[in-house]
Amino acid sequence: MNQLRTPDAALAELMHGIGLKARAAASVLARAPAAQKADALHAAARALLAARAEVLDANAIDLAAARAAGMKPAFLDRLELDSRRYMAMLGGLKEIADLPDPVGRLLAEWTRPNGLVIRRVATPLGVIGVIFESRPNVAVDAGALTFKSGNAVILRGGSDSTHSVAAIHRALVAGLQEAGLPGDAIQLVPTTDRAAVGEMLRGLDGTIDVIVPRGGKSLVARVQEEARVPVFAHLEGLCHTYIDRSADRDMAVEVTLNAKMRRPGVCGATETLLVHRDVLETHLLPVLEALAAKGCEIRGDETVQALYPAATPATEADWHTEYEAPIISVKVVADVGAAIAHIEEYSSHHTEAIIAEDPEAVRRFFAEIDSAILLHNASTQFADGGEFGFGGEIGISTGKMHARGPVGLEQLTSFKYLIEGAGQVRP
Amino acid sequence: MNQLRTPDAALAELMHGIGLKARAAASVLARAPAAQKADALHAAARALLAARAEVLDANAIDLAAARAAGMKPAFLDRLELDSRRYMAMLGGLKEIADLPDPVGRLLAEWTRPNGLVIRRVATPLGVIGVIFESRPNVAVDAGALTFKSGNAVILRGGSDSTHSVAAIHRALVAGLQEAGLPGDAIQLVPTTDRAAVGEMLRGLDGTIDVIVPRGGKSLVARVQEEARVPVFAHLEGLCHTYIDRSADRDMAVEVTLNAKMRRPGVCGATETLLVHRDVLETHLLPVLEALAAKGCEIRGDETVQALYPAATPATEADWHTEYEAPIISVKVVADVGAAIAHIEEYSSHHTEAIIAEDPEAVRRFFAEIDSAILLHNASTQFADGGEFGFGGEIGISTGKMHARGPVGLEQLTSFKYLIEGAGQVRP
Repeated sequence: MNQLRTPDAALAELMHGIGLKARAAASVLARAPAAQKADALHAAARALLAARAEVLDANAIDLAAARAAGMKPAFLDRLELDSRRYMAMLGGLKEIADLPDPVGRLLAEWTRPNGLVIRRVATPLGVIGVIFESRPNVAVDAGALTFKSGNAVILRGGSDSTHSVAAIHRALVAGLQEAGLPGDAIQLVPTTDRAAVGEMLRGLDGTIDVIVPRGGKSLVARVQEEARVPVFAHLEGLCHTYIDRSADRDMAVEVTLNAKMRRPGVCGATETLLVHRDVLETHLLPVLEALAAKGCEIRGDETVQALYPAATPATEADWHTEYEAPIISVKVVADVGAAIAHIEEYSSHHTEAIIAEDPEAVRRFFAEIDSAILLHNASTQFADGGEFGFGGEIGISTGKMHARGPVGLEQLTSFKYLIEGAGQVRP
Repeated sequence: MNQLRTPDAALAELMHGIGLKARAAASVLARAPAAQKADALHAAARALLAARAEVLDANAIDLAAARAAGMKPAFLDRLELDSRRYMAMLGGLKEIADLPDPVGRLLAEWTRPNGLVIRRVATPLGVIGVIFESRPNVAVDAGALTFKSGNAVILRGGSDSTHSVAAIHRALVAGLQEAGLPGDAIQLVPTTDRAAVGEMLRGLDGTIDVIVPRGGKSLVARVQEEARVPVFAHLEGLCHTYIDRSADRDMAVEVTLNAKMRRPGVCGATETLLVHRDVLETHLLPVLEALAAKGCEIRGDETVQALYPAATPATEADWHTEYEAPIISVKVVADVGAAIAHIEEYSSHHTEAIIAEDPEAVRRFFAEIDSAILLHNASTQFADGGEFGFGGEIGISTGKMHARGPVGLEQLTSFKYLIEGAGQVRP
């Protein structure tokens, strides 16, 4: 007798099958030699190059549908692949292929008094779920980073980029198979049913080891709220720059301008500027003038408004806001301790910078603030795996478990202990 | 107008308050100098010494109640504190006090081409929830390890050890306060309401960073099933020892005997023995005779039964069973590959050992098995933080995120990046 299958049961079965295939591929991949993994990614790059026309045609279909649906220009821009972006995507893939293999690295080694030699070596994590939205290139970035680190990945793209991502995925799989590795190492969820995301967030019966959301705040918030497995993500990058009384004036201007205005929309952009009350005329005024000259809106507390009448009043909400736009909130503080207290209260614990020459102010800033990244005399926009030398990142994590800050290849690994004995028994 | 408070709401409010106090204490503790933390633990040890009579009296009350409730001898043994155990507990506390401080360790340092110097330094995790059962000494062990690593801890003991743990907790808090650190760094949930555990497993509104269950399988299973925050734990220690064709005979006997019979109830005890089919008469027979002579029950496959008629048949269930008792299941395999396949199918991925002289067999065993701890020519009973030189452990984790294997002080930390610049801006 046939059982009736509900759509939910069919979806669960589909996702369960994807999980099993990912686990099997992860087992093969964990044992694959470094050279074979690198070869596979280079083969994938060649396959993607050969598939360029096909992928761009698929992208044109997605773009036409998005335009017809009235999507905004910023959305269309994220979705669009042109020849320049396509080649940049391939260049990134080849760079990841050539990075040092993170699996098998010797992380620590020591010898016990009884002669046991203990080594801690890096292993893959297992299976990684990546949930993303409109940018098709995430399939390549995330697929390559997880594969290079010996993990199988399950990709779930946005419904608006279905054709683009499917075409990209076919090329990636062809590359892996050409190198003799399982195509299931990079799987794409073949349905736009939102319930598939729910299945992934529940971990596919223990198959998924970690979830990485790549997209806007509503996606990240849903993932953080619903996931029953670990998540590498940051919900907000509410970053601060503090200009101390001891700061070099020109450096304060240049670094703050870069921290806010280089790209106001990135997560490492400074949103709130804190300034020591002793350097308002000398430091803050030229900083605000430089920001305003670049088109930045200034929202200040009362002292700032008095100093710089073009500033609009900052409300309590401003201290909580990641603008992702050319707007900055500015507050005057009594000393570095007050700056630290403000940051500990309002920060998303992503990235904070201090501009100072006084080593004691820097010491306190570094010791007392619990954010993933703290900088002295440098722009908060350095909060990026590439800038750390990680050769790419799958995201930045504000969690404190396992990965914190930029999540590169090393953060996509776990470890195991290998112990060499000569017949030792435990007393 | 007064709102009616349900018991549930009162409990949630109580637990929420505990979470807030823990978070505040963690913030102080994260900044506390290493010497002050060590002093506090020594003061706690002195306070515990002074409170010995009080704690032992409290323990007698718990014991009397447990006896009256008809608890089994093994349970009463876990609950009981006598003078010898009390002094051993204090000795352990003082050892933890004197361990190197794990906070602030320099984990990595490198310089970027642009001159930025990036350091990764260890930080506390934050707030750790420890849920334990009848052993009162867990309050001291877990409290000291979490405190030493700069974390605040919320302890939830079993209802049977209420009086003992409360008396121990009072002494610990007195010690912390004597050293000028917040007593809230080590809190004890003051209710035996089981719903309090549920509140902890939901993380107390994001306050608890990680949960550590210390107790039997039903506790660990509940915690792993219900927790919405990361968990450091192993549900089972289904460990294997494999005797290769190339093994030294005497070593195989001695190591296997220790791996099973030193303490059959610990998580690192071997449960299943795998033996290469070429060494049945030479190696397996003396191993089985030695095990049987120590009172171990042998359950074997058909080949084992033919070799050693006293063996009872092993069923499929045996390969899945962590006996925690003097029983061993024994299987004959064709080669190291078959041993690896059996382990990957049945192991809990805790600890496995190979006895072999052939380096290629060892290489495959180490490369292809994904367990937390792999040993060559040594007993699986070395799976212990103390034996690793960690100076104590809060447990052993079979998870792959953050901590794997013994969880000591280092595994109870996270990290942050400290970046030194000279005015760098990002191009």
